[in-house]
Amino acid sequence: MTLRALHERARQVLDPVHYDFMAGGAGEERVLTDNERAFDRYGLLPRVLRGHARRDTSVDLPGAPGAGPVVVAPTAFHRLAHPDGERATARAAAAEGAVLVTGTASTIAVGEVASAAREAAEDAVVWFQLSLHPRPEVTEALVRRAEKAGCSALVVTVDAPVFGRRPRDLRNGFTDLPPGHAAENMRDLPGAPPGGLTDIPMSPALSWSDLDALLSMTALPVLVKGVLHPADAELAVAHGAAGVVVSNHGGRQCDAVPAAVDCLPAVVDAVAGRVPVLLDGGVRRGEDVTVALALGATAVGVGRPVLWGLAADGEAGVRRVLAELRDGHDHTLALCGGGRNADLTRDMVVRRGGAR
Amino acid sequence: MTLRALHERARQVLDPVHYDFMAGGAGEERVLTDNERAFDRYGLLPRVLRGHARRDTSVDLPGAPGAGPVVVAPTAFHRLAHPDGERATARAAAAEGAVLVTGTASTIAVGEVASAAREAAEDAVVWFQLSLHPRPEVTEALVRRAEKAGCSALVVTVDAPVFGRRPRDLRNGFTDLPPGHAAENMRDLPGAPPGGLTDIPMSPALSWSDLDALLSMTALPVLVKGVLHPADAELAVAHGAAGVVVSNHGGRQCDAVPAAVDCLPAVVDAVAGRVPVLLDGGVRRGEDVTVALALGATAVGVGRPVLWGLAADGEAGVRRVLAELRDGHDHTLALCGGGRNADLTRDMVVRRGGAR
Amino acid sequence: MTLRALHERARQVLDPVHYDFMAGGAGEERVLTDNERAFDRYGLLPRVLRGHARRDTSVDLPGAPGAGPVVVAPTAFHRLAHPDGERATARAAAAEGAVLVTGTASTIAVGEVASAAREAAEDAVVWFQLSLHPRPEVTEALVRRAEKAGCSALVVTVDAPVFGRRPRDLRNGFTDLPPGHAAENMRDLPGAPPGGLTDIPMSPALSWSDLDALLSMTALPVLVKGVLHPADAELAVAHGAAGVVVSNHGGRQCDAVPAAVDCLPAVVDAVAGRVPVLLDGGVRRGEDVTVALALGATAVGVGRPVLWGLAADGEAGVRRVLAELRDGHDHTLALCGGGRNADLTRDMVVRRGGAR
Amino acid sequence: MTLRALHERARQVLDPVHYDFMAGGAGEERVLTDNERAFDRYGLLPRVLRGHARRDTSVDLPGAPGAGPVVVAPTAFHRLAHPDGERATARAAAAEGAVLVTGTASTIAVGEVASAAREAAEDAVVWFQLSLHPRPEVTEALVRRAEKAGCSALVVTVDAPVFGRRPRDLRNGFTDLPPGHAAENMRDLPGAPPGGLTDIPMSPALSWSDLDALLSMTALPVLVKGVLHPADAELAVAHGAAGVVVSNHGGRQCDAVPAAVDCLPAVVDAVAGRVPVLLDGGVRRGEDVTVALALGATAVGVGRPVLWGLAADGEAGVRRVLAELRDGHDHTLALCGGGRNADLTRDMVVRRGGAR
Repeated sequence: MTLRALHERARQVLDPVHYDFMAGGAGEERVLTDNERAFDRYGLLPRVLRGHARRDTSVDLPGAPGAGPVVVAPTAFHRLAHPDGERATARAAAAEGAVLVTGTASTIAVGEVASAAREAAEDAVVWFQLSLHPRPEVTEALVRRAEKAGCSALVVTVDAPVFGRRPRDLRNGFTDLPPGHAAENMRDLPGAPPGGLTDIPMSPALSWSDLDALLSMTALPVLVKGVLHPADAELAVAHGAAGVVVSNHGGRQCDAVPAAVDCLPAVVDAVAGRVPVLLDGGVRRGEDVTVALALGATAVGVGRPVLWGLAADGEAGVRRVLAELRDGHDHTLALCGGGRNADLTRDMVVRRGGAR
Repeated sequence: MTLRALHERARQVLDPVHYDFMAGGAGEERVLTDNERAFDRYGLLPRVLRGHARRDTSVDLPGAPGAGPVVVAPTAFHRLAHPDGERATARAAAAEGAVLVTGTASTIAVGEVASAAREAAEDAVVWFQLSLHPRPEVTEALVRRAEKAGCSALVVTVDAPVFGRRPRDLRNGFTDLPPGHAAENMRDLPGAPPGGLTDIPMSPALSWSDLDALLSMTALPVLVKGVLHPADAELAVAHGAAGVVVSNHGGRQCDAVPAAVDCLPAVVDAVAGRVPVLLDGGVRRGEDVTVALALGATAVGVGRPVLWGLAADGEAGVRRVLAELRDGHDHTLALCGGGRNADLTRDMVVRRGGAR
Repeated sequence: MTLRALHERARQVLDPVHYDFMAGGAGEERVLTDNERAFDRYGLLPRVLRGHARRDTSVDLPGAPGAGPVVVAPTAFHRLAHPDGERATARAAAAEGAVLVTGTASTIAVGEVASAAREAAEDAVVWFQLSLHPRPEVTEALVRRAEKAGCSALVVTVDAPVFGRRPRDLRNGFTDLPPGHAAENMRDLPGAPPGGLTDIPMSPALSWSDLDALLSMTALPVLVKGVLHPADAELAVAHGAAGVVVSNHGGRQCDAVPAAVDCLPAVVDAVAGRVPVLLDGGVRRGEDVTVALALGATAVGVGRPVLWGLAADGEAGVRRVLAELRDGHDHTLALCGGGRNADLTRDMVVRRGGAR
Repeated sequence: MTLRALHERARQVLDPVHYDFMAGGAGEERVLTDNERAFDRYGLLPRVLRGHARRDTSVDLPGAPGAGPVVVAPTAFHRLAHPDGERATARAAAAEGAVLVTGTASTIAVGEVASAAREAAEDAVVWFQLSLHPRPEVTEALVRRAEKAGCSALVVTVDAPVFGRRPRDLRNGFTDLPPGHAAENMRDLPGAPPGGLTDIPMSPALSWSDLDALLSMTALPVLVKGVLHPADAELAVAHGAAGVVVSNHGGRQCDAVPAAVDCLPAVVDAVAGRVPVLLDGGVRRGEDVTVALALGATAVGVGRPVLWGLAADGEAGVRRVLAELRDGHDHTLALCGGGRNADLTRDMVVRRGGAR
């Protein structure tokens, strides 16, 4: 089944309101559309006769040496997609050698998610995504949970100072998880009653000093996710980030931003190799992975396709998605004459004339 | 109700001939279409972690300190849209803290309009739009009316030396207001019989010396509206204008001009901060306000959406439109990490790749 | 009736085969389409408050002082469009003050055409279009006929070294005029039997020395029509041409050339004001005339719209077309703050963002 | 019958699975589409009055002095298109003076193909396309066959280190030739049992040293086919290639590359006239040939249209295709004022404004 077919299957099996929550974007969904379409605007100039009999597409990421180039980006509420929820996603990612980024919006607690991953593969890598909380003790409690679960890196989301306006959810009245589901990592945090849930934090008051505070709380590497402006990439590195994730939150926050991949080259230039740069948003084909890496990304994240695989066929569906993207990239790397991702250089990327 | 829904409702309740008069543009309506579409071509690069817990989107405009960033642009004949006409618009604008630009084509006299505004909010700001009349005494009489009504600035329309050719109106035979309606500010002006109406002036003979004459008639600040060429912006400032409004008259005059927002950056550069630059034409979303301000506008005007709100739901509809645009801008400012409009800088604006 | 309506009417009344001959272009008609669409890509930046109470859009052309800015471009076989043929066209052009370019493909002889023009207006200007014939005596005979008829300039077509391939005509089998019609100016030329017709010459062997020979045959000013490459414009001026016509033969010759107006600026730059530059191809609106003049053309030619006017309503239809374009240009000039065509300067032309 | 009509006829007569194999491309067929569309983006600026009474469009290619500018590009399995298979193609190419590139995927052995060609025209030129085999003795055996058949040049395909993924074939389950057909040149090669077939080699391990080995095996000129990156063109020349073929394998390998013609100018610049540069991919009209030559190609290859001609009408269909493209180019050359291909210079090529 192709990724498109998995998407269609997912659309059929999901509650339409939940489908809309997963598929939708902010505003008129201009960014949502452009994230995918943008990849059509980049062309690759293959090299020939380079003599690479074998290929190795693995990458070195913070806390994830030798990982696959496709990372499972954090997405919310996997139990809405499949009863096994994030456990299935974790097993699939582990089996395919992909880093899993779980986080605050998981419907299964990080400890259980990490265990599921390690059951599938002993060396499974799980990262933990969180938003900084205005009260540092809340942030710290989340960090300790992630550390205790064996997560090897933290990913701080910085593009959600306020909640994005998503017309589909507003129209559907989808404002909360259905009974029986919760963001389990947000349970029993400081300041909440026993068993109570804390809201996933969103605060425009957060600043780089809050990041500094986080860095002082933990020895884990911290990636900053949601950077589009190269000056912020520079700041992230200067403050000690172990990686930068170019992302527009899948088009779910501000509907006036550029496609994620269009922001990648300037961020890569600003970071200048000091830390890895990841990219998520619109990756739907193996060729898209290759393009992003040729533009300077170390790895890519993939969000919605994982949800479609999960909804369509559970763990097997997620594996299918991850394998397809990884193999498609490997195939494209071969067609470009490469043996390693580093063989993909910026001079191999051109604008394709016919794309919009 | 979204702005789109208000527009649809307005289309349904309005006399089709009046709808066409309000909705239509000159020629093949290329400019009309492009005014809106042009905003898709601009992307914003948000900044992150800037620590602005609160936001203030107010702006300082001539005679309007602390106004909202969305101004009600002058449009004609509000009583065609709703029986309450400009009174309703005035109350709505005042209640929402928006400057109202009323003017020569009002179906209610400026004094009554200004009173309605002040009933709704004591500190309501009303500006008066006028075209220079070849006979200075007519212009002066209009100025005195505006002054007497308590208007705090004048807006001179300079992009109508002749009347635009609008195929919808020609096809519909819409050449005059229906019985019982009139441009009330044009009544009883010098040279007209008692109770008689003077045509709204349009003359290609007008020149910068006519503007000089106006400036010498009044102590009110005068903004020049309808500037697209940066050299004219320079001239306006040199002649003493208190502000420049980049506008193509909503695509109703010349069907070969660029989209208004496409003309904004060069005008901003020419004016170089000496006076505020406003922009109208195609603003339909909060994000459009943010883009215009990031390109250097101090505030934006909005015309047709106000008419749709007025037609759909009277004063409440207009408030809805103004609140939606102001709040949408505030939301986008938050997503861009800003606390004040000045946090929106030109480096945050890029071309979006996928737009046409 | 608008120009579009005249076109539609013409389509209805014309023999479909003749309509196709007139409307069609070479190859896949890419150039035909682009000639019109190209004007959408140019925007005008009006100037304001320039104080031009009156306008004069007349132009000085070779042998045509004070002509209108819209010239009737040479098109073939007007009797296929209307029984009055080129006589009606001539009367209409004369009445509207437009230069008429008649020529070798006229179904009425130049003498009669010129007489008809002068009956309508004493000072009517008629130019004669011809292709150079490999045998100079044939060219010379044509020149003498034009001179005798009182033509005040010659227009040499240089973009037809071979015949364009027009799929519509090939499909329709339209290879010759129907009985009773002929290219009357080609009758009784040297080398033909009495009353016999000579083929309209097309020869790739023609060179600049043939133009030199023509110039030595006549005192009439000679314009070179069908120039797209600026180097050829330079050569034309160097060889003594009195004007250059930027034209791609209405998209009827080579289907790989750019739109005519897209070639205009470079030709204007090459000619650098030494002789007038005219433009034909795609002019369908008054705004198009204004754009061409702002880009440096002295005047524009218009072909198919004249045929549609002629087919739809004879002389009156042609007058309607010419008046509409001239008045539309005058209107646009007014909206641009101009009093004369010279007020339209290159800095007023920009690319319009939304056009393709 | 136009080329489009031949294509349509071929679509009707071919087994749909075979049609898909021939017509299809890799991935989402973005490159397949863009290869053709790209030609719309180039415009020609004709020159006028250049005095070329006659034209000669012949070109000098390695082992093919005075060949036509249109070469039959290598395509697979002609017996699927027509029972006469490559014999018919060979006769047609020879009769039209076109170089035929036969090769490893021929369903008729090269000796018979070359004989058929020489029966049709004594001076017929046949080239042999091959992929380098990891075992040099296999490559060498193929070279000897080509030499023995009288091929005058070799064409090495370098853009197929792995097999392209073509969704149509995957969907149709088309993985092998039907019974009774085989790649006859791959029969009885070293290492295979008597009468046995060797797979057409595809290996990412191949390198420039394998090309060096080939060059040392034969005195025939060797062209390198499948170059898009200018640095590879430079390497090909440096290693001794007698020509470079800019090609993306008809969009059948990597679906992220640019249109072939978009890659041509940079390769031409890199090669700098040292060897001929050929171009294949998307050539469908005479004008396309002219554009490619004006951009610096010495000749163009044409693949699918030959198959459509073959399927629609056998040898006569192929002749029709080759004649149409050659004559269309000759016609366009005439319209551009040229007498030889060298009259087409880079300054005559511009971007066409309206194309995507």
